[in-house]
Amino acid sequence: METTRYKLLMRYDGTDFAGFQVQPNQRTVQGEVERALLKMTKGQFIRIHGAGRTDAGVHAKGQVIHFDYPARLPADAMQRALNTLVSDEIVFWQTEIVPDDFHAQYHAVSKMYEYRVYNQALRDPFKRNLALHHPFPMEEEAIKKALSYLVGTHDFTSFSSAKTDKQNKVRTLYRADVQMDPIEKEWVFTFSGDGFLYNMIRIIIGNILPIADGRRKPEEIKRMLDAKDRQAAGMTAPPNGLCLMEVRYEKEEEKQKK
Amino acid sequence: METTRYKLLMRYDGTDFAGFQVQPNQRTVQGEVERALLKMTKGQFIRIHGAGRTDAGVHAKGQVIHFDYPARLPADAMQRALNTLVSDEIVFWQTEIVPDDFHAQYHAVSKMYEYRVYNQALRDPFKRNLALHHPFPMEEEAIKKALSYLVGTHDFTSFSSAKTDKQNKVRTLYRADVQMDPIEKEWVFTFSGDGFLYNMIRIIIGNILPIADGRRKPEEIKRMLDAKDRQAAGMTAPPNGLCLMEVRYEKEEEKQKK
Repeated sequence: METTRYKLLMRYDGTDFAGFQVQPNQRTVQGEVERALLKMTKGQFIRIHGAGRTDAGVHAKGQVIHFDYPARLPADAMQRALNTLVSDEIVFWQTEIVPDDFHAQYHAVSKMYEYRVYNQALRDPFKRNLALHHPFPMEEEAIKKALSYLVGTHDFTSFSSAKTDKQNKVRTLYRADVQMDPIEKEWVFTFSGDGFLYNMIRIIIGNILPIADGRRKPEEIKRMLDAKDRQAAGMTAPPNGLCLMEVRYEKEEEKQKK
Repeated sequence: METTRYKLLMRYDGTDFAGFQVQPNQRTVQGEVERALLKMTKGQFIRIHGAGRTDAGVHAKGQVIHFDYPARLPADAMQRALNTLVSDEIVFWQTEIVPDDFHAQYHAVSKMYEYRVYNQALRDPFKRNLALHHPFPMEEEAIKKALSYLVGTHDFTSFSSAKTDKQNKVRTLYRADVQMDPIEKEWVFTFSGDGFLYNMIRIIIGNILPIADGRRKPEEIKRMLDAKDRQAAGMTAPPNGLCLMEVRYEKEEEKQKK
C-alpha cells in the first residue's frame, strides 16, 4: 500500500506519562500519539518511531518522531489533526514529509539534553515537575571541572543503568557544560553527544551534585569513569529536571562544539 | 489555653487541588495545611483562615493565612516544620508571629490577582496549567479601553457568579491593566481591588477576550456593567490562568495605583 512518511518535532510535559515508549497498561507518549493516529485512520494501526526513548517524568522540547501514513495529507494538515487529537501535554510544532528511508532513531547523529537544577533555599511549587530542587550552595568552577572529564569518547559503564541491554557502552560527549539561567534561577546543564546510555545523564547529575556543594572533589568523576563499573558511581538524580532539547541528523558536531 | 497566632505567606500550584477551602472528600489547600498541623500537634485540630478562597485550579504566589498554635515556636521553626509536612505543591515563604487580633481575611484591605493568557498560535504543554491558551490576535488598545470601564467603584453583579451568597455586589477596583510579558509571551492582566466577587476575574477575562480579538467592541463591557445582570455577560474563563499575587493589610491603595 502507498504510504507517506512524516517527520514531526514535538514538545511534551512528561510528568504524567510512564515515559515515551509504549508499555502495557501504562499511559505513554507513544501510546497517546498512536491512539490519535488510530482515530485518523479509523482503526488502522500505525507504529511511530521516536529518536529518543525518554523515561517516565522526562520532558521533551525537541523530540523527533516518524511514521508512515496511508494517505498523503499536506504536512500542516497532519500537524493540525494530531494537535487536535492528542492531550494538551503534547504539541507538534514542526512537520514535514520526508523520504521513505528517513529514520528518526537510526539516522540521528547527535542529541542534546538539558538538566535543570533550581538552586534556592525554598522550593518553588511551580517548578516541582520541571527542575530538581537543590537547596545547597553550588560552585560553578567545581562543576565545570568535573564535567570536563566526561567530554570526549569514553566507556560510560559507570554512568549507565545496569538494567540496559546494550553491550557497547562507549559514547562520545561533544559538550558537557553548565550555566545559570538568571530568570529562572536555575543551573542549566547541557549535554550533547552521539548517544546516551540508559539513565546516563541522571547518574552524571546525581554524582555532580555532591561535587557542586563541596562534599566531594571534581576528580571523583574521573575515578568513577575509569572504574567502568556502575557500583563506582552514586545515586541517580530524579527525572523531572531532564529534557530532550534537540536531535540532529547531519554531521554537525563541529557546530555544536562552539 | 495559651496560643500563639501565626501569619504566613504561601505559594501554591492549584492544579491538583479542589480549591483553597475545605470540602468533604476533596483534596484542598486548607485541608492539606490543617493535616500538617494535626501532625505537629499530635492530633489537636487547628483551623486555618485564608485571605482569599481561591477556586479549583487557581494558583497563589501571595496567599496569606493565620492560625493559633498551642505553643510558641519561633517563626522560622514553624515555617520549616510546615514546609516539611505539606505537599511540594505548596511552600510557605514568610512567617511571623502576630497579635491575637490579626485576621487574614477580615483585615485585608486589598488584593491583587494576575491572569495570564498565552497568546501564540500553538499551545505550550509546559504552560497548560498556568496560563490560558488563546491563539487569536489580541489588540492591546481595545483591551485597555475595555478594562478602563471597570476601574472604580461599581456594582459588579454582571461579573459575579449567580452562585454567590453575598448580597452586596459593590466593589472598588483600584487597577485593571494588561501588559505583555516578553519572556513568557503572555499577556498578564493585573487586577487590584478592595475585594472580588465569586468568579469575578474569570468572568471579566471571559468577556475581554472576544473584545481583544475584535469580535466585540470595548464599550460592551460598559453595557454589561450597567445591566447589573449576570445574563448580560458571557462565558467564564478557565481557572488555570488566575493567581492570587498579594494581599495588603494597610490602606495602601494610593501606592498600588502607581
